[in-house]
Amino acid sequence: MNIAIIGGGAAGMTAASRVKALRPEWNVMVFEKTNFVSHAPCGIPFYVSGIVEYFEELCTYDVSYFRMERGIDVHTNSKVIEVGEGYLVAEEDGKERRYEWDKLLFTTGSRAKNLDVKREELEGVLYLNHITSAEKVKNLALKAENVVVIGSGYIGVEMAEAITRLGKKVTIIEMAERPLPEYDAEIAAIIKSEMEKFVNLRLGEKVVAFEGKDRVEKVITNKGDYKCELVIVAVGSHPNTEIAKKIVELGKSGAIKTNSRMETSRGGVYAAGDCAESLNIITGKPDWIPLATPANKMGYVAGVNIAGYELHYPGSLKSQITSFYNTEIGKVGLSEYEAMREGYEIISSFITTKSTARYFMDGLIHLKVVADRNGKLLGIQAVGKGVAMRIYAVSALLYRGANIRDLFFTDFPYYPPVSRVWDPLVVAARNLFRKLGIP
Amino acid sequence: MNIAIIGGGAAGMTAASRVKALRPEWNVMVFEKTNFVSHAPCGIPFYVSGIVEYFEELCTYDVSYFRMERGIDVHTNSKVIEVGEGYLVAEEDGKERRYEWDKLLFTTGSRAKNLDVKREELEGVLYLNHITSAEKVKNLALKAENVVVIGSGYIGVEMAEAITRLGKKVTIIEMAERPLPEYDAEIAAIIKSEMEKFVNLRLGEKVVAFEGKDRVEKVITNKGDYKCELVIVAVGSHPNTEIAKKIVELGKSGAIKTNSRMETSRGGVYAAGDCAESLNIITGKPDWIPLATPANKMGYVAGVNIAGYELHYPGSLKSQITSFYNTEIGKVGLSEYEAMREGYEIISSFITTKSTARYFMDGLIHLKVVADRNGKLLGIQAVGKGVAMRIYAVSALLYRGANIRDLFFTDFPYYPPVSRVWDPLVVAARNLFRKLGIP
Repeated sequence: MNIAIIGGGAAGMTAASRVKALRPEWNVMVFEKTNFVSHAPCGIPFYVSGIVEYFEELCTYDVSYFRMERGIDVHTNSKVIEVGEGYLVAEEDGKERRYEWDKLLFTTGSRAKNLDVKREELEGVLYLNHITSAEKVKNLALKAENVVVIGSGYIGVEMAEAITRLGKKVTIIEMAERPLPEYDAEIAAIIKSEMEKFVNLRLGEKVVAFEGKDRVEKVITNKGDYKCELVIVAVGSHPNTEIAKKIVELGKSGAIKTNSRMETSRGGVYAAGDCAESLNIITGKPDWIPLATPANKMGYVAGVNIAGYELHYPGSLKSQITSFYNTEIGKVGLSEYEAMREGYEIISSFITTKSTARYFMDGLIHLKVVADRNGKLLGIQAVGKGVAMRIYAVSALLYRGANIRDLFFTDFPYYPPVSRVWDPLVVAARNLFRKLGIP
Repeated sequence: MNIAIIGGGAAGMTAASRVKALRPEWNVMVFEKTNFVSHAPCGIPFYVSGIVEYFEELCTYDVSYFRMERGIDVHTNSKVIEVGEGYLVAEEDGKERRYEWDKLLFTTGSRAKNLDVKREELEGVLYLNHITSAEKVKNLALKAENVVVIGSGYIGVEMAEAITRLGKKVTIIEMAERPLPEYDAEIAAIIKSEMEKFVNLRLGEKVVAFEGKDRVEKVITNKGDYKCELVIVAVGSHPNTEIAKKIVELGKSGAIKTNSRMETSRGGVYAAGDCAESLNIITGKPDWIPLATPANKMGYVAGVNIAGYELHYPGSLKSQITSFYNTEIGKVGLSEYEAMREGYEIISSFITTKSTARYFMDGLIHLKVVADRNGKLLGIQAVGKGVAMRIYAVSALLYRGANIRDLFFTDFPYYPPVSRVWDPLVVAARNLFRKLGIP
């Protein structure tokens, strides 16, 4: 059997490894357009700030490992330009080559959204599409005095911290009225005040143009202009579906439609990772969730099914954590806004409390829990101290369809330096009991 | 209605507060034999090491708060000496006083086990029964040069760290062949090597006597003797059931038998906290689980039911975390040994891996996952870095009856400084797939 995998990122290499582990005699080909595979862009901010010294460390394994140890036929610098029934054509070393496949997997990932404003093509205006951008960003950041980051999603926030750590002045320009716009207002307000200690945070501003002679010198918004030598654009991303959409259906989100075996609308053709749709566990609907952990698991599931076994991907919760300096930030499931948009009638509790025993000085956690009127948990958001462990716990509860009674009664461990006898999650659950009239 | 609560610890005061919140017009009496209520002995090690300055901070609220703010009739220095149908007799100010009750709650807690060896009564041999011991321990520890801690359960380990932080030499004497004997051997071996960096850890030794003129001067074991000026005995505890057992049934564990409403064998009489049995969620059997968080929740449930509403306590997972210097330690559910003793046919996976992205230098986590042959999760144990958040997550999974497929597919959040794209929990789940032949 010939298996063709288009894209050598996390999902593609996980799937390839899985097929070879289960079917060592099969021919597994991976077509990767750069010369890196198994690249992990989540690490870019840590390379820029200097925590990671060599950007090659951002690849979990290198090409020769996959070729030698796992027997995968990895084609690097190989750009797939055509896919038809049972074959594909790739540009390799300037030549077009044709390869046959029995089963095909799209793991073509996502790419950064353009801003579509004037002179975006100027030198010094960068997108973070891939780890290959990391070196360029770092070199320019080291030389710059002023850096503008456009967008305050996870990537914008993490890059802003990384660059301020290099001693540079950072301005963030965000179109929405708050940073990390996926979070509800109460949580975003706290994130905002933390961010303002380190960066010039411009909210409700829209970039209209870039200016500069050879290189970018200024960012122009609807409210002002900002001198800078480097601009990082992080305003979201799109699934990469140019080739796939010619032979398989896309979903409403624009990503490739899949079933729980990660099979597309065409039998024998699969999709996984950032180019694919998958189930949102909370809403029960297809969703586009371009995150590293789901990408790896989708690749794993695709690999098992391609190998002829059966495994179903249950979907994702959009579980996410990050930090800005000493402030942890996290979210899983739906925000209040997202839940209302989905048509839920909701109750919510926002609390601010110590995350440890009160005689430890370790700081506060701000926590918002959202549930429906039957008490079904829909999501939490948190900022402050002790966030990661609460997001971990609630990810597990949401995965198992928990309600607010479970949130109250789950036996969380207590150790004064890291938790409380009445955990913040439990306190929030009690507030929700009150709102539902539960004694 | 007159409600009598015997014992003003966490469970008692939580129950009292709950009854008053739901039935403000009822008379709620708490009989506490010391002059502290709402005492939190988990904090004693942090008082001894100096992190907590005043031991009064170990009480969540003081007596006047409960009297004034919550309207609870708190009797301190009040020792209940007799309980009969509808009444009790308490010694207060040297006098015996009789009080009537319509409903009664035992929250009499637990007390440290004695060693039953010669000259245990010597000055300087201390038990950690109650926060009132904290001051004495600290004063003696400050004056001592050598301290012996007998027992290496959680209290022994935490006290040993606290006292070494005061600059004192600590010897731990443990009868079992490993420290923290509730943990399986692989995990205990790592804890042992960490502990040996800071204390003289004597395993497989049994204390046979104490020696000294007026005060303790030496601990004699079956293998040697240890000069010291202070001994802390932490070899486990017993439920306090002296009075209760005259009127209600005890369970096999020796603690008071209860149903899920925390009612005892006698209608209208309840028990909660360390003196009571409750359900072990994993085994589905009654168990004695003397831990702070379950005690509080049992008190809460008892209070709601005493107030005439219905709430069921689902039981506990024995979820626990602690640390020894920079090593986090945690366990939830059953160890392999405990699972086998319960009659399970088990599979297990023990792994050592980074708890963060590999380009962070933050150290290793050692993790053991135990499941039954149908893949049902039974418990995990962990030591190293990033332990607390994994114990939190698995507590949630175990509470919701998860299996190893859930452990694999739960969408845990990924952020390179604190977690991995393939979380250690997920890696362990994959190992267990392999053992069950799941592709």
